Amino acid sequence: MTGKLYGLGLGPGDPELITLKAHRILQSVPVIAWPAPDTGPSFARAIAAPHLPGGQIEIPIVVPMRTERFPAKDVYDKAASEIAVHLDAGRDVAVLCEGDPFFYGSFMYVFERLAASYETEVVPGVSSMMAAASAAGRPLAARNDVLTIVPGPLDDAELTNRINAADALAIIKIGRHFKRLRALIDSLNLLPHAIYAERVSLDAQRLMPLSEVPEDTAPYFSMILIYKGGEDWIHALPRSTT
Amino acid sequence: MTGKLYGLGLGPGDPELITLKAHRILQSVPVIAWPAPDTGPSFARAIAAPHLPGGQIEIPIVVPMRTERFPAKDVYDKAASEIAVHLDAGRDVAVLCEGDPFFYGSFMYVFERLAASYETEVVPGVSSMMAAASAAGRPLAARNDVLTIVPGPLDDAELTNRINAADALAIIKIGRHFKRLRALIDSLNLLPHAIYAERVSLDAQRLMPLSEVPEDTAPYFSMILIYKGGEDWIHALPRSTT
Repeated sequence: MTGKLYGLGLGPGDPELITLKAHRILQSVPVIAWPAPDTGPSFARAIAAPHLPGGQIEIPIVVPMRTERFPAKDVYDKAASEIAVHLDAGRDVAVLCEGDPFFYGSFMYVFERLAASYETEVVPGVSSMMAAASAAGRPLAARNDVLTIVPGPLDDAELTNRINAADALAIIKIGRHFKRLRALIDSLNLLPHAIYAERVSLDAQRLMPLSEVPEDTAPYFSMILIYKGGEDWIHALPRSTT
Repeated sequence: MTGKLYGLGLGPGDPELITLKAHRILQSVPVIAWPAPDTGPSFARAIAAPHLPGGQIEIPIVVPMRTERFPAKDVYDKAASEIAVHLDAGRDVAVLCEGDPFFYGSFMYVFERLAASYETEVVPGVSSMMAAASAAGRPLAARNDVLTIVPGPLDDAELTNRINAADALAIIKIGRHFKRLRALIDSLNLLPHAIYAERVSLDAQRLMPLSEVPEDTAPYFSMILIYKGGEDWIHALPRSTT
């Protein structure tokens, strides 16, 4: 009997925003694997930490952040091999994922290497995009709005087309593209409609109008939400949500 | 001291896919309110049912399904008044929401009536869109994909533009628009790239290529996912996920 592979969505950061199902699996699997940058700790591991019973085998998947080449093929090849050894030995393995595993997550690189050979279950999680809207006290999209999710690394022409076409947008993966993105949004006269959200649901959460962000850079775990509709009732509401 | 209003995301349907936070709040609030169609039971209430301690006050928000007029203003006015009575008396009230409260949810109609006057917290939940991708064993979006969420009631010209522009799409609110949507997707030669997902994460889950759906209608809790990229490795994978 080979083990089962889980892609485990852990939500946006608050350990209380994991699902009962993810919690049960964390408490029972003998092996966990988790992504980490080579520049610091693993965010996914930190979300799971309060829920781990202790004693499990751990497989770090350390992804170099300094290269432009992504996915880091060798890293995922090696991780898949290590995970496969445990699956072959009949041990279940949970790959920890921030947010939702299949919403722009790196879990796909493990999945594509192993899901054809081993029983695999993906457990969805709360996306940071949903958590950002909740924290901002504004619906992400409503009624017949078209909502577009746009990765920040796209070029200005492509971004402009996407921003012009959508009713509501979430711009993700902003990081080092932050300054360029803010200038572009300003040039489209949409600064008053844009919210900046960073590390949502954590104690370090920052949430403010994009126009008020003092820095010219943003961390990886941040996003911009743009609301174009004339929903003044939303904009007029106090930020009573937490 | 007035009570606190919660918009409580309960996830896609499997009661195990609610968050620890939603679970804690369900166990403690003295009053719950939940939407229901006038034609059947409340889906949100059903997701919460296994987690309710019993004895709480319940406020049904019965939304007529036979009218084209939405939101049903009087229904939400009345519900907000009933909820406000409890908040004024110092009792916390949780409004139960399928999926995520601020992702096309009806909670916004309660929120817009009460959030300016009462402390309000929106607790994000797992969206059925994320759960559908997990169940299908295919990432919803990856790398620099643009993901667009499109409501099915939009007209064919608008839908065509949206479908042509996106890398990946989720078409939601399909219901009685199903037959028209399938014909449109076929006319764009995208049937081989489309997945139909219904009641994801429940025992009654149905998941199949759109081309294989025998009916000409779909229930409210269904969606279509379209993947346009040449990600053959995804399409070639067995449906090993559950």
